[in-house]
Amino acid sequence: MKVNLMHGAGGAVFSDLLGKTLTKYKNNNAGGIGLESLDDGAVIPFGDKNIVFTTDSHVVRPLFFPGGDIGRISVCGTANDLSMMGGKPIALSCGMIIEEGFDIDILEKIVASMDEALLECGASLVTGDTKVLEKGAIDGIAINTAGIGIVEKPVRDNGLKPGDVIIVSGTIGDHGLCIMTTREGFDLGEQIRSDVAPVWELVKSAMDAGEIHAMKDPTRGGFSNAINEMAEKSGVQVRINEETLPIRNSVRSASELLGINPLDVANEGKVVMGVSADDAEAILKAIKKNKYGKDAAIIGRVTEGKSVIMETSIGGERFIEAPVGDPVPRVC
Amino acid sequence: MKVNLMHGAGGAVFSDLLGKTLTKYKNNNAGGIGLESLDDGAVIPFGDKNIVFTTDSHVVRPLFFPGGDIGRISVCGTANDLSMMGGKPIALSCGMIIEEGFDIDILEKIVASMDEALLECGASLVTGDTKVLEKGAIDGIAINTAGIGIVEKPVRDNGLKPGDVIIVSGTIGDHGLCIMTTREGFDLGEQIRSDVAPVWELVKSAMDAGEIHAMKDPTRGGFSNAINEMAEKSGVQVRINEETLPIRNSVRSASELLGINPLDVANEGKVVMGVSADDAEAILKAIKKNKYGKDAAIIGRVTEGKSVIMETSIGGERFIEAPVGDPVPRVC
Repeated sequence: MKVNLMHGAGGAVFSDLLGKTLTKYKNNNAGGIGLESLDDGAVIPFGDKNIVFTTDSHVVRPLFFPGGDIGRISVCGTANDLSMMGGKPIALSCGMIIEEGFDIDILEKIVASMDEALLECGASLVTGDTKVLEKGAIDGIAINTAGIGIVEKPVRDNGLKPGDVIIVSGTIGDHGLCIMTTREGFDLGEQIRSDVAPVWELVKSAMDAGEIHAMKDPTRGGFSNAINEMAEKSGVQVRINEETLPIRNSVRSASELLGINPLDVANEGKVVMGVSADDAEAILKAIKKNKYGKDAAIIGRVTEGKSVIMETSIGGERFIEAPVGDPVPRVC
Repeated sequence: MKVNLMHGAGGAVFSDLLGKTLTKYKNNNAGGIGLESLDDGAVIPFGDKNIVFTTDSHVVRPLFFPGGDIGRISVCGTANDLSMMGGKPIALSCGMIIEEGFDIDILEKIVASMDEALLECGASLVTGDTKVLEKGAIDGIAINTAGIGIVEKPVRDNGLKPGDVIIVSGTIGDHGLCIMTTREGFDLGEQIRSDVAPVWELVKSAMDAGEIHAMKDPTRGGFSNAINEMAEKSGVQVRINEETLPIRNSVRSASELLGINPLDVANEGKVVMGVSADDAEAILKAIKKNKYGKDAAIIGRVTEGKSVIMETSIGGERFIEAPVGDPVPRVC
């Protein structure tokens, strides 16, 4: 059997490959939350606190796009995964694989963008490695980052409880549609910009405002994949109110034009949370105060049962399902 | 200016590119030892201990070679960098970039080999990420690992003091010459095998036996690069006794045939240490007890001055210089 592109798309086929091969490690846990959980990061107990640890490789094309670039996404992607576990990002590593002939001026721009994102995260890039491959052995550049964060009480993606309220921290689909329209050269009047941003401060203010039961960032596979994973792992049903889902008009138009569901594509600066109903308004208020949380909204609730249901604006119901593969390849 | 292959070779040209671009991060230190030190790993203070953090990407060809494979090297490379800081390897991350069409059977063999090496290290692979690229965008597979270790008192690569004794934990040049002869299809009678192995237990027994002032693993750029970095960063001269350098006959023959200096090529299971003269015999004895330390030897001493000098068997002297680039591309 061969690896195919769908295996890398963060959807159901990916889980299949993962289940069959890449989770076979017997040595998969260092005493806390390990690879077996397939959460946004691992947790390793250390004294009276916990280390959060995660990694992501970045191969997005184009390297520079409206709202961001591969450097910014490399820092935010990993810092946000730490944040999703409740972990304050502390330190990142960077492993670059570069093709012979790559322009050093572009490399300098990428490094500068990473540095700016690090400053915003409050994290440092403390260790690195660089490999240069012969022409043709890698398409330009790939950037892996791993990250370390600190947390007292980790937040999981499987802690949804019936009665919880679902909050999303802002508009959905911006990054995926930005990448797609940039590649296709669409002019849609209003330019779609990626939302790539570090969300630690937003997450921290939410955690300070109330009880968060589960949290995930809707990256590859988009909101559909994230909310299905949360519901399935938690053993609950999630009901989303279509009317309340924040989606930009430009993103909606582009998604119709391209035949892509905005719920199925990656976001790079958003959080989906399940919070206690009593705390929902306070948490929403705290998130809205953050520069990356202005469009936050309560979009649904958790009930007994299974699956994710969309309650449509005309009173109907349909399933929200995890995409089989991400409709936008090389989105991050 | 463009990136060229020499930039990725771990020698002097690499330092040049690093100095110019990849160390420009202002956010480069999390309160301990950061990117600015270009040591084998970073150190982050945590309570009364320290976290050690490091990363390496692996692109070795062929994927399987006598003595090891890309999976084993991915685990050992990172675990050994942690060990070089005195850190016990605890947890690894794994970021794989895989080409569409890659054989899943081979992937399974790589995963099994990583797992075996993890068991030997006493570390766990706790978090991962997988990207699949379209055909032609990556040559088969690249594996990044990052790692976390714990240390009370970090060991640096810049702590050599005049009077110290230099120990190497075994034969030099095995990995680099193994890769080269395997690629070229040479039959040298005795097959040259890679030395790829986790050295934490060896390092721990050495640390328990006496005072280690500086430590480094001679990977890309080989022994020549490692010992020059140690001498330069420590502000001392190192004098190596050629007669005492452990080099296998098969490695020596192959290196002569290929015109490659065995001191300039990567080792993947060796340590170079500078230790207090009083403790040297005890440390050597401890190392020799380890299965990867049987050929360990005292090979030189540290004096006032600068540079690395080889005292030859016929009474002459010459400089050992860091190679400009690694003579074996894609060695790890």
